[in-house]
Amino acid sequence: MTTIGFLTDFGLQDDFVGTCHGVILRIAPEARVIDVTHGIPPQAILQGAIVLRNTTPYMPVGVHLAVVDPDVGGERRAVALQTADGRTFVGPDNGLLMLAADQLGVAAAHELLDERYRLPEVSRTFHARDIFAPAAAHLAVGVPIGELGPAVDPETLVRVDSPDPDVGRSQISATVVGIDRFGNIATNLLAHHLAALGISTGDRVEVRISFDRYYASVVGTFADAAPGELIVYEDSYGLVTLAISRGNAARLTGARLGDELRLAVE
Amino acid sequence: MTTIGFLTDFGLQDDFVGTCHGVILRIAPEARVIDVTHGIPPQAILQGAIVLRNTTPYMPVGVHLAVVDPDVGGERRAVALQTADGRTFVGPDNGLLMLAADQLGVAAAHELLDERYRLPEVSRTFHARDIFAPAAAHLAVGVPIGELGPAVDPETLVRVDSPDPDVGRSQISATVVGIDRFGNIATNLLAHHLAALGISTGDRVEVRISFDRYYASVVGTFADAAPGELIVYEDSYGLVTLAISRGNAARLTGARLGDELRLAVE
Amino acid sequence: MTTIGFLTDFGLQDDFVGTCHGVILRIAPEARVIDVTHGIPPQAILQGAIVLRNTTPYMPVGVHLAVVDPDVGGERRAVALQTADGRTFVGPDNGLLMLAADQLGVAAAHELLDERYRLPEVSRTFHARDIFAPAAAHLAVGVPIGELGPAVDPETLVRVDSPDPDVGRSQISATVVGIDRFGNIATNLLAHHLAALGISTGDRVEVRISFDRYYASVVGTFADAAPGELIVYEDSYGLVTLAISRGNAARLTGARLGDELRLAVE
Repeated sequence: MTTIGFLTDFGLQDDFVGTCHGVILRIAPEARVIDVTHGIPPQAILQGAIVLRNTTPYMPVGVHLAVVDPDVGGERRAVALQTADGRTFVGPDNGLLMLAADQLGVAAAHELLDERYRLPEVSRTFHARDIFAPAAAHLAVGVPIGELGPAVDPETLVRVDSPDPDVGRSQISATVVGIDRFGNIATNLLAHHLAALGISTGDRVEVRISFDRYYASVVGTFADAAPGELIVYEDSYGLVTLAISRGNAARLTGARLGDELRLAVE
Repeated sequence: MTTIGFLTDFGLQDDFVGTCHGVILRIAPEARVIDVTHGIPPQAILQGAIVLRNTTPYMPVGVHLAVVDPDVGGERRAVALQTADGRTFVGPDNGLLMLAADQLGVAAAHELLDERYRLPEVSRTFHARDIFAPAAAHLAVGVPIGELGPAVDPETLVRVDSPDPDVGRSQISATVVGIDRFGNIATNLLAHHLAALGISTGDRVEVRISFDRYYASVVGTFADAAPGELIVYEDSYGLVTLAISRGNAARLTGARLGDELRLAVE
Repeated sequence: MTTIGFLTDFGLQDDFVGTCHGVILRIAPEARVIDVTHGIPPQAILQGAIVLRNTTPYMPVGVHLAVVDPDVGGERRAVALQTADGRTFVGPDNGLLMLAADQLGVAAAHELLDERYRLPEVSRTFHARDIFAPAAAHLAVGVPIGELGPAVDPETLVRVDSPDPDVGRSQISATVVGIDRFGNIATNLLAHHLAALGISTGDRVEVRISFDRYYASVVGTFADAAPGELIVYEDSYGLVTLAISRGNAARLTGARLGDELRLAVE
């Protein structure tokens, strides 16, 4: 019984996700599909890649189906990758899979061209249903990855441009890479970036987003702060994150994905 | 192991869907439930019927449970239908099931009156939990449809009024029948309606929604257009659809379900 | 094959729920997870407790994992409870579990301190992933509750303050305890509170929310009223609820969770 982790930007308002579940279970009736998330912002390949990288270690070793695909029907390739630990990743060759796959080491890559493993009719706008879900399901029932199509040189796979923080002597320029339901604002900073500025738990920091300036406490968790207090903490995936204890930091600051967030010792 | 495709207008904010899953698994612990979608707009029977018809071919042959039920607790009947290909459909007799079921051919219909296949207490406002989900689960474990209640003449089942497009010599009046998460606006037009006006891929068309006028390119897929360009394409279920490549056409145009959309050769 | 009912305030936009599913299936590959709901308003412990109490009878006897946890990482305990009917509940000791568990009778309680049943690394902000989901999964594969950590005196478990309605001679002061997707406004009133004022089906009542006054009919179900009519009915969990037949009462009245709703004989 193989599990298929399924991550997209499809949302749950439409039938996109459910239809792919149907396609999978027609081919692989015993497969277990885990909906990792379908809430990636529409067409946000980088966010999808980050969430896929963060969540993969918590998923059973199996198939990982990921689709954020603004160029569906165009020139981009459809691929399946095998990683050194025995996982397989299925999705568009636009960088989405690569933060996760490169971390594990790509052992093989194949283009999804064999018609036996697609639906009989392939639309030009819903390859998740017609190409990716069938490929994931066939992998789940044991079809070897090499059967899905010709080998692809892993070096030629498209990588995402992942923004790096800019760490100065007294301040850091970071990028907002995630905003969750609770309004917590995740950045591309890791704990060692804060350490480089000598910032540690218990310190106060200045945070600038656009022209607005805030002051926050560096803490371990929400319960270390008073309700309503602005805090900076390392989130459960290791990303430095701005939040409000029992509140919503995204609503307060108006921060959006891709915004610059500057952080300095107070 | 039978699958139950489950489609409603319940959304996922409340416990309606989860509670029905619980009811099903108490009766049919081995059943696989596929959440086709629960994002049908509240009480939109026609949209539900269209999505059920579009998605059914992608689902395993099994049970299809669908509930969009503004008249719950009133006079409308609760029914189960068997189609010629061996599927069964369970839901209210208000037209919701009929675009899918009539396409496949209704072989038998029964009213869900036998108390053995309902929950012991039936509320007046949540028949999905108390009548429909139990019926679907009992069908999934092999109860014959005839056990669920008295036969119903398929001719007497309620049908939905499905709007037909109005095709003139140089323009077509269509109806908006779906708007998805990406803002793509599906209409009740099929490719042959465009062909009747001599419109084909590569052409430019004029689109009118309310008093606003737009120009769009007829293309095969998003990647055939520049980002930001308004396009008309045949969606993956065959519906002629208005969209913006890498954008949101519903937000631009303000189009809503049921709106008239007029299309003409430019 | 044990089922795990899963209820949170995580929403479905992020990966929180999917990651917990992954953690569970790594430990308990045969478990069936039922997503009861993840739409509890953020950090709304009382609403979560009410929904858990309402839905538990409809779930298979098994494990119930519930997480609404504003004090994650703080002093609050993480617990597992066994009830007299053989169910187990897992979650934070903040009252969330107790409306359901007290109704069934708490037979045993244990604090989730044994490191063998947590993930190897425990974050300070995502105990659902690192502590609660692993505990639920281990219970599902048969680990006895006593293995998870030291026994806790059930008397010391935190209870929620559940508001009681204030029933006068001619009017009742109630509290809004739930608002669903359809805009139906559930209160903490039960049918016997209406009966105490002599209100029964067919009567007209006056409803006051803040400074606004409405008139509603007491009915059995939506179909008993004309479309657009304001109604009061007993919802499918027994709560007296204000709604509009084929409409949205929350939108009309602007009612919110926790608001006072006053009801009087017209």
